[in-house]
Amino acid sequence: MARIAVLIDEMFEDVEYTQPAEAFKRKGHELVHIGLKKGIKVKGKKKGTEVTVDTAAGNASAGDYDALFIPGGYSPDHLRVDQDVLDFTKAFVRSGKPVFAICHAPQLLITADVIAGRKVTGWKSIVQDIKNAGAVYVDDAVVEDDNLLSSRGPDDLPAFIEASLKRLEG
Amino acid sequence: MARIAVLIDEMFEDVEYTQPAEAFKRKGHELVHIGLKKGIKVKGKKKGTEVTVDTAAGNASAGDYDALFIPGGYSPDHLRVDQDVLDFTKAFVRSGKPVFAICHAPQLLITADVIAGRKVTGWKSIVQDIKNAGAVYVDDAVVEDDNLLSSRGPDDLPAFIEASLKRLEG
Repeated sequence: MARIAVLIDEMFEDVEYTQPAEAFKRKGHELVHIGLKKGIKVKGKKKGTEVTVDTAAGNASAGDYDALFIPGGYSPDHLRVDQDVLDFTKAFVRSGKPVFAICHAPQLLITADVIAGRKVTGWKSIVQDIKNAGAVYVDDAVVEDDNLLSSRGPDDLPAFIEASLKRLEG
Repeated sequence: MARIAVLIDEMFEDVEYTQPAEAFKRKGHELVHIGLKKGIKVKGKKKGTEVTVDTAAGNASAGDYDALFIPGGYSPDHLRVDQDVLDFTKAFVRSGKPVFAICHAPQLLITADVIAGRKVTGWKSIVQDIKNAGAVYVDDAVVEDDNLLSSRGPDDLPAFIEASLKRLEG
């Protein structure tokens, strides 16, 4: 079973966290929530889903996890200003282990400077940012490029979850 | 007195709208709120300030206004997916008339493709996006480049308002 790091902060898109999280746990995978500060409670932007941060990014090591999951909403906008989060993200993407990014999650990947030359999708508002970061934007429900798996938003959740679970089995 | 177009949608940063708006009105300037649909009420993300959209961007013409004001928060993230808003923004920036952009407002300027080669500032989370768009990011309270005036966020409001008012007098 996989140990999955979840990068999360305030105003995440509830369903983009809850649905994959439930599917991952149902298959026996473990989730560890990594954020700006250990012990803080962060809330979803639409339904107020509450998540407790288990570990600050500054104390987390990419080597301790088998996969990275980044939900969307405005959580990535908060996370991308923190250097520890950026270092963790960069180390993880470079490790070659699976990264599951949905909706606004590529914002974090852009600031971590890890998507140049990669095929990526994301929420429609950030298409230009993805292209300007040197990535190849692909308008599809699931886009896979080596270890990077991305989806556009809530409507893509079934495909995103199915493809992510497949990676965790592999 | 100037007629100022305000591009606004849900989850704008309350103070980044209310404080400049009050200062502009106090000096006798008129505000016209332009957004995704005429008549909708949009709310600020922290204090729930309510603003009614006067005109849909598709029915607005840059020629009818003397200046453009774009508050921050998550309003620009919503506005930048709308082609009419992008067309209006692009026409306005190219008109040479003053544009006042604060916080996340450059996100809209990025998708409108109008900041390459320009000096711009903005909220810390979008610094990389500003640079990737070909602009020169400047870490200052007010950055002026020809008709484009930008500020980083709420702490810069006094300087942002003072510099904007000065442009409206000029």
